[in-house]
Amino acid sequence: MTINRQKSKDEVIEALHGVASEMHDRMAKGVPPTMTLPVRSKSNIGFDKRLGVYKYGKKKTVRDATALGSARQLLRALHITEFVEGMITDGKTSTLREMYYISEGWGHGKFSTQNESNNLAEDLEIVTKCLREDFGLRPEEDGARIIGNVTFEERNRKGDWMRINCRDDVGDSGYGVPYNVESEKLSLIEEDVDFVMAIETGGMFDRLVENGFDEEARCALVHLKGQPARSTRRIMRRMSEQWNKPILVFTDCDPWSFRIFASIAYGAIKTAHISEYLATKEATYLGITADDILAYDLPSDDLSKQDSNALVAELSDPRFSTGWWQEQIQLMQEIGKKAEQQSLAKYGLDFVTDTYLPEKLSAMGLGY
Amino acid sequence: MTINRQKSKDEVIEALHGVASEMHDRMAKGVPPTMTLPVRSKSNIGFDKRLGVYKYGKKKTVRDATALGSARQLLRALHITEFVEGMITDGKTSTLREMYYISEGWGHGKFSTQNESNNLAEDLEIVTKCLREDFGLRPEEDGARIIGNVTFEERNRKGDWMRINCRDDVGDSGYGVPYNVESEKLSLIEEDVDFVMAIETGGMFDRLVENGFDEEARCALVHLKGQPARSTRRIMRRMSEQWNKPILVFTDCDPWSFRIFASIAYGAIKTAHISEYLATKEATYLGITADDILAYDLPSDDLSKQDSNALVAELSDPRFSTGWWQEQIQLMQEIGKKAEQQSLAKYGLDFVTDTYLPEKLSAMGLGY
Repeated sequence: MTINRQKSKDEVIEALHGVASEMHDRMAKGVPPTMTLPVRSKSNIGFDKRLGVYKYGKKKTVRDATALGSARQLLRALHITEFVEGMITDGKTSTLREMYYISEGWGHGKFSTQNESNNLAEDLEIVTKCLREDFGLRPEEDGARIIGNVTFEERNRKGDWMRINCRDDVGDSGYGVPYNVESEKLSLIEEDVDFVMAIETGGMFDRLVENGFDEEARCALVHLKGQPARSTRRIMRRMSEQWNKPILVFTDCDPWSFRIFASIAYGAIKTAHISEYLATKEATYLGITADDILAYDLPSDDLSKQDSNALVAELSDPRFSTGWWQEQIQLMQEIGKKAEQQSLAKYGLDFVTDTYLPEKLSAMGLGY
Repeated sequence: MTINRQKSKDEVIEALHGVASEMHDRMAKGVPPTMTLPVRSKSNIGFDKRLGVYKYGKKKTVRDATALGSARQLLRALHITEFVEGMITDGKTSTLREMYYISEGWGHGKFSTQNESNNLAEDLEIVTKCLREDFGLRPEEDGARIIGNVTFEERNRKGDWMRINCRDDVGDSGYGVPYNVESEKLSLIEEDVDFVMAIETGGMFDRLVENGFDEEARCALVHLKGQPARSTRRIMRRMSEQWNKPILVFTDCDPWSFRIFASIAYGAIKTAHISEYLATKEATYLGITADDILAYDLPSDDLSKQDSNALVAELSDPRFSTGWWQEQIQLMQEIGKKAEQQSLAKYGLDFVTDTYLPEKLSAMGLGY
C-alpha cells in the first residue's frame, strides 16, 4: 500500500474507474457496493525499519453502503472520481477548498466539513495508488522558495517549458516552488552545488541569501515555511535522488522543529501512504541542537509544558530512536531550554555564515 | 508627522544623528536627554477626511531619562541608531527578530520582548521621518506574489538590475515581491494591463492564474496573503500612482476581509504615521459583498460572535462611513451570514472567471 511514482493521465483515469468498478460489480451481483481501505488509525501505522519510513500495516476496513454514513462516503467517492476525471480531461486543477464547495451540487454527497473532503481525497490516494497531485487537487499553502545555482524547467500554464536558474533568473525572494513538482511539470536540469540546505524561518533564509552563503558554501537554499508542504518535501527528495546531494536541515531548537526534520527524513503519520515518495532518508539535522545552545551560549527560552510533553513523546518516537537524538532530547530536558535560529544574531549578522555554519559543516565533513 | 517618500542613505544617517543630537545637546546643557514623540494612543489618531487616511494628531509626549523605563528606551534608541547606521554603511539589512537578539549585547538597553523592539523601530520611523525600509529592518512575513503582463526591474543582492516580466519570466507561483519596493530596489518599467486585482486567498489567486484571467481581462493579479505586508501595500500604491491603474480588491465577505481592504485604501492605525505613503485611495472593493451572497446564492456560514462585534465596530469606523459600506454591513447583519471567495466554486471552477468577475467588472465600467 505505497505510492512511489506519479502516474500517466490514462493510468490515473483507469485507477479512478477501478473505484467505480468495485462498486458496480457488487451491485450487478445484487450485493451492497464497497470500498476497501487500510485502517487509518495510529495502531495500523508502523515505522518500517528497513525502509526507514512510516508505512500502513495490513489491517483493512471495508466501507459498504448498508449504513447511511458509509453510503454517503461511497457516493462522494464516485462524485470525486467524476470531478477529477473531468479536471484531467480539461487540464484543470482545483484547491481542496474548491472541491468542498463544488460538492454543493452533489445532493446527498455534499460534504459537511472541509475535513471530510480532505480525508476522502487521501482515501482515494490510498485506494487508487495515485497521488493527490495526479488528481490535480491542490492545497492552499504556498510551496517553498529556492535560491542557489540550480536550474529547473517548469512547464507553465500555457504548456511551455521555461528554464529558470534559481540564482540568476529570480529576484531576492527566490524561485517559488509550484504545487506539483513531478516530471510532467518540473524537470531538474543542472546544478553546480555541493549540498542543499533546508531552512525553517524566512528570517534565516533571507540572512543566508543576503550574506551570499549559497555562493560561498556552494549550496542551494530552500525556505521550508514551517512544516513543509508536500511539494517542498518532494522537490528535496528529487534533488537528493537525481542529483545525489546531501540535504541538511537547519531549524530552531525546539520539539516542533525536530518534527519538521523528521517529516522530511522519515515522513509523517498523515502521509504514511506516500512516505516512500516524499521522504528523504539522506536528510541530516544540522542544528540548532541542544549542544549548540551550550557551546555558543545562545539566547534561549524556557521549555513550555507543551514543549516538555512533546519531547517526552519524541523519546519514544521511532524517528528519534538513534543514540544521537536521544542524547540531544535528554540534554534539552536537562537544561530546560529551547532556542531560535535567529538567536545566533546575538554575535552579529554575519556570525551564522562566518562562524556557526562553517564550524557545523566542517564537523560533518562538508567544510568549504 | 507624515512620511511619504524614501530618503537617501545620507539623509537617513543625518536623521539618525538628529536623535543623538537632541540627547547630546540637552546633556551638554546639564539637563536630562529627551526624545519627543507623538502620543501613540487611539485618542491621538484621527481619520483625515481631506486626505482620506489615518493620521497622528498633534499631541506629543516627551521621553526623558529621569525615569528608569524611559532612560532605557533612550539608550535603546541610541543603540538602534548605531546598529542601523552600521547596516547602511555595510549595505546590510536585518529582520526585526535579529535586532531583538543583537540587543543581547546592549547591556541595560537589551530588549525584554520582541514587541518592545518592534515598537521602538516604529518610534524611530516617526522621530526621524524615515521608513523602516530606509533602516534596512525587515519583517519575517513574505511579500505578495504577482502574475500579469507588468515588468519590474529588481536590484539583486549583487547590485545588478534584473528585468522580470511577471507573465513571461516567472513560474506558476509568480513574482515574489521583495520586502523593499522603493526606487533604489525596484523600478516599474512597463505594463500592458487595464487594472490591478488584489486577491485575498492563495486558492483564488491560483484559480485566476490557471484560468488565464490576467490575459483575458488584461490585468495584473496580486496575491495579498491575508493582511498585506507593507511592501505589498506599497507596490500597489506605486502601480496606482505611476501607472494610473485602478486597484480592485477581491476578498472573502467577512469583517476581517473588509479590514484588509480598508488597510489598502485608507491605512491602518498601527501604520498611521506612514498612511500617506502606503495607502491607495483609488482602491475599490469588488467583492464578495453581502449583495453577492444573495444574488448568487453562495454557500455561506453563520456570523460568529466575534464577526458580529467586528461589524458593529466597522459601522462607526470612518473608513466604512460611505453609504455603500453602511448598507453592505447592515445587510450582512440582517442575513447573519459571511461567505468565502472560493464558495463561487459551487457553480464550477470557471464560474468566477466566466460569470462572476465579468458581471462585477462591467457593473464597475471595467467590462472587457
